Amino acid sequence: MKRVLLTGATGFIGRQCIAPLLAANEWEVHVVSTRRAPPEDATADVRWHTADLMDGVQMRRLMSEVEPTHLLHMAWYAVPGAYWTSLENFRWVRASLDLFEAFAEHGGQRIVCAGTCAEYDWTGDGLCSESSTPLAPATLYGASKHALRVMLEAFARQKNLSAAWGRIFFAYGAHEHPQRLVASVIRSLLQGSPAPCSHGDQIRDFLHVADVGAAFVALLASDVEGAVNIASGDGVALKDVILKIADRLNRRELIELGARPAPAGEPPRLVADVTRLRREVGWSPERDLHRGLEETIVWWRHEMEAPRSEKVTGE
Amino acid sequence: MKRVLLTGATGFIGRQCIAPLLAANEWEVHVVSTRRAPPEDATADVRWHTADLMDGVQMRRLMSEVEPTHLLHMAWYAVPGAYWTSLENFRWVRASLDLFEAFAEHGGQRIVCAGTCAEYDWTGDGLCSESSTPLAPATLYGASKHALRVMLEAFARQKNLSAAWGRIFFAYGAHEHPQRLVASVIRSLLQGSPAPCSHGDQIRDFLHVADVGAAFVALLASDVEGAVNIASGDGVALKDVILKIADRLNRRELIELGARPAPAGEPPRLVADVTRLRREVGWSPERDLHRGLEETIVWWRHEMEAPRSEKVTGE
Repeated sequence: MKRVLLTGATGFIGRQCIAPLLAANEWEVHVVSTRRAPPEDATADVRWHTADLMDGVQMRRLMSEVEPTHLLHMAWYAVPGAYWTSLENFRWVRASLDLFEAFAEHGGQRIVCAGTCAEYDWTGDGLCSESSTPLAPATLYGASKHALRVMLEAFARQKNLSAAWGRIFFAYGAHEHPQRLVASVIRSLLQGSPAPCSHGDQIRDFLHVADVGAAFVALLASDVEGAVNIASGDGVALKDVILKIADRLNRRELIELGARPAPAGEPPRLVADVTRLRREVGWSPERDLHRGLEETIVWWRHEMEAPRSEKVTGE
Repeated sequence: MKRVLLTGATGFIGRQCIAPLLAANEWEVHVVSTRRAPPEDATADVRWHTADLMDGVQMRRLMSEVEPTHLLHMAWYAVPGAYWTSLENFRWVRASLDLFEAFAEHGGQRIVCAGTCAEYDWTGDGLCSESSTPLAPATLYGASKHALRVMLEAFARQKNLSAAWGRIFFAYGAHEHPQRLVASVIRSLLQGSPAPCSHGDQIRDFLHVADVGAAFVALLASDVEGAVNIASGDGVALKDVILKIADRLNRRELIELGARPAPAGEPPRLVADVTRLRREVGWSPERDLHRGLEETIVWWRHEMEAPRSEKVTGE
């Protein structure tokens, strides 16, 4: 049986890797977070570990206890807005290098990490291909992820490890930070409040977060190496996403397109080429946008009616 | 007056930055090394600091004492052979990120770092251009330098710092590690011993280390940003360098071309496009290969006749 260590296991995306890992029935699943106790919805099939990955001593103790064969590294700094420029990105580069070293020292075989579409050059036509789109990150976040991938690939080659790098595009769904687009529009409309938006003409590639988690698990189980876009491959205008939500909730009058400026540096289009994900990993999403939004609305309605202790989550 | 902090100041290349900094007469020159005392040939015009840059506390204390306006970061792990694969590369990435942060916090304005031709893809035609040659380092060393540059550029953009990155090709001269090509051939012939070499057909771009140091100081004083090749622009076959040394010492019979295998992964040709260095920085070398080798032979003869306490040096 393969033994996986999942980092960032209480984060927005990391938590979505747990169910598909268990469902595959081929993994001994270890997860790590800084929380002292597992979340209330944690299943007994998962071994929870408490450690701060920024602390080399705690991290190395964890590695020697678990001795994972596989590392699924989803932990990162992910506070909305702030993460683009935060120096926490450098701290996560450092912690990740440490993690890779310790993983290799304890006999680890395969590493899969969360990358980002922000590694790509955004000044082109907006179609992002692993093999042909230049890597020219415009932000500290994108640069840090890109730099870590460069070092991971060299490290893996040298240590004879297998490594892959899933580039996440636009995830939405349960546990999304309430300030992010899909979450904030749904929440506003459920509360009957206006939802001021930008013009909404930006084309993006959305994938429901449960599908993002499943795609990472499929990538982990495969022997595909290098960068793989984790996305739907379908471009949709933000305003179409917004209006889909409004129509479902019958509150189109609350949508205020153009009421907010679009963030500076936003490219008109960002869509993934998903050929590698489909053909090499052999994975495709379970949900289309319609079903994904439906599930997300149901989740938020439940969440807002019966609030839980923990609401704000990261990547 | 501008205040520069030079790291790696006792290394093979770093030490060569001191004289041109002083000669320019526009710098207050601070240098840092782990040595407790300045080397015996240190001049009183230079302020020597002892600190271990791997130790964040020592490094930050130094930064707050010096408050440099400019950082010339030449320190790195440089043990011949070992540096290509050593995990010390990751430690230097981490220490360098710390250094950049502390420099910015203390009001620093411009950073110039030592990069390497090993950042380039070596599978092409061997002419390395900053603007058109892909960056595809094959080694952990090259990957670490490449990754650090990516992060430095994003950091500098965000913090409004000026930053440049000098890619070093093949330096030779005083204080070179005795195991490296030019040093080992000269030493063998001066001792009257055979000098077993590879076939020597590899074309490389050599620059005397004093010129490398002068080029870095010119780059530092300029406002050129981004990557700049630090090289001669002239390709020469290793065997021609070797035979030039042999002819000068009249010991051609000691040269054994083809007696050693060429290292695996050695590309046939690595030559720099030096357009940026010549036109934008406005710098060209003082020495051609003939004069550079002459000076190097003189230095080694002196060194081997009157050995000093310190011989093995790094980059």
